[in-house]
Amino acid sequence: MILIKIGGGEAINLEATVADLATLEQPFIIVHGANVLRDQLAQRLGIDKTVLTSVSGYSSVYSDAAALEVIMMSYSGLRNKQIVELCQRNGINAVGLTGLDGRLVQGERNKGIRVRENGKTLIKRDLSGKPRSINTSLLSLLLENGYCPVLTIPIADENGYAINSENDDIIVQVAQALEIETVLQLIEAPGFLDDPGDENSLVARMSSAELHAREATVEGRIKRKLLALTRLCQGGKTRVIIADGRGEQPVINALAGAGTHIS
Amino acid sequence: MILIKIGGGEAINLEATVADLATLEQPFIIVHGANVLRDQLAQRLGIDKTVLTSVSGYSSVYSDAAALEVIMMSYSGLRNKQIVELCQRNGINAVGLTGLDGRLVQGERNKGIRVRENGKTLIKRDLSGKPRSINTSLLSLLLENGYCPVLTIPIADENGYAINSENDDIIVQVAQALEIETVLQLIEAPGFLDDPGDENSLVARMSSAELHAREATVEGRIKRKLLALTRLCQGGKTRVIIADGRGEQPVINALAGAGTHIS
Repeated sequence: MILIKIGGGEAINLEATVADLATLEQPFIIVHGANVLRDQLAQRLGIDKTVLTSVSGYSSVYSDAAALEVIMMSYSGLRNKQIVELCQRNGINAVGLTGLDGRLVQGERNKGIRVRENGKTLIKRDLSGKPRSINTSLLSLLLENGYCPVLTIPIADENGYAINSENDDIIVQVAQALEIETVLQLIEAPGFLDDPGDENSLVARMSSAELHAREATVEGRIKRKLLALTRLCQGGKTRVIIADGRGEQPVINALAGAGTHIS
Repeated sequence: MILIKIGGGEAINLEATVADLATLEQPFIIVHGANVLRDQLAQRLGIDKTVLTSVSGYSSVYSDAAALEVIMMSYSGLRNKQIVELCQRNGINAVGLTGLDGRLVQGERNKGIRVRENGKTLIKRDLSGKPRSINTSLLSLLLENGYCPVLTIPIADENGYAINSENDDIIVQVAQALEIETVLQLIEAPGFLDDPGDENSLVARMSSAELHAREATVEGRIKRKLLALTRLCQGGKTRVIIADGRGEQPVINALAGAGTHIS
């Protein structure tokens, strides 16, 4: 089984990605982002995005009720149904779901983010949390009956409230719950770059030990992504491919060796 | 089995509706609108809504690509996930779906609407169509496994493209496909009113013959609604209740006799 993460960047070639997926023989699950759509919609609606950086160096979007509404419109609504539509046009019988639907992704509400503001340490709570378990019986029910799940945020908290969560953390949970063999992440770069500013600095092969070492040296959102990748590779059963989602045949090329292969 | 249509008006009491549904013993399906959310979002985004009136007197919203995006954001995204969230908070294991997902509602693209403009008859084609069949196997799969389907637009055309459709027509298809006994429509009025301007003119009981007679005497969107209701009652197996969704206990009151009961 393959899990495809389609990044939320504007340059991702959705048409080519779905056309490739339609040629795969094995079953697959799609998890997708929509950060650019979310930011564009928030801007058009005049809703400001707040990014908090915790004292331990991880940054995340502050999710209030208005931010959750924008997530529901952009992730669960527009992008999810655009991908489902593309799948249906290509003969993939996709079913779009959020973590709320059937409590597919059961999360735990964050206790609060410790931030430094004006020389003080504050705890800020919002509508966000960590995915803790997957409703594998619903996913299996759909897969066994020929449907392709297309999954995105929000997820459910302990009381059924919609909360924001990191798609990278959701992927770790899905991969572990379903013992996924291959996780393919399509991004707006040729793969993992040694120098983020230089597209010619692709790291073609990486061990999970090397990934772990790199995680300790970076800051911000990429730190969170690398931490999730480290967790994905920890069991030793999942290989991760990070590859370019911008060109033609992004999935076929990645499975044939393009991008960064981590195992 | 009950099918609940939750209207897309602003005054519908969603919390009370879902709290009532959580007390029902029989399984149910929810179909919902979101026309007020759609109109508000379109206005905030500066997207104009075009309403066409056909030469035969039916009016409908003209659905171009931008209108479909607004539908995906407001119906499939915001309102669908708000209802799923409310269900999850009340212990109903809801799964939100559009007609695109698993081709739950297979439609047929409209050939075009015949309109009169400046003294000429023109054919206008858009991204809209009629629901023709229901993926009952997917609905049954969910219902048999304890999930409550929460359904809305868009639906799929013959080639898998997302198209707009009337929720009232979708309800007719679902009711016939699943042999639904009771269709409960929650609206922003006490029920069917003899005089639309007078909330005290409730028609408490109506035969399907009377419904058919009334359909011939009205114009505009209500004509389309009455036509759908007539089709619902045609088989004689489905009773229809149109009741007030604005107060407390809207479902319990309606099942106990409130509103307009048609059979």
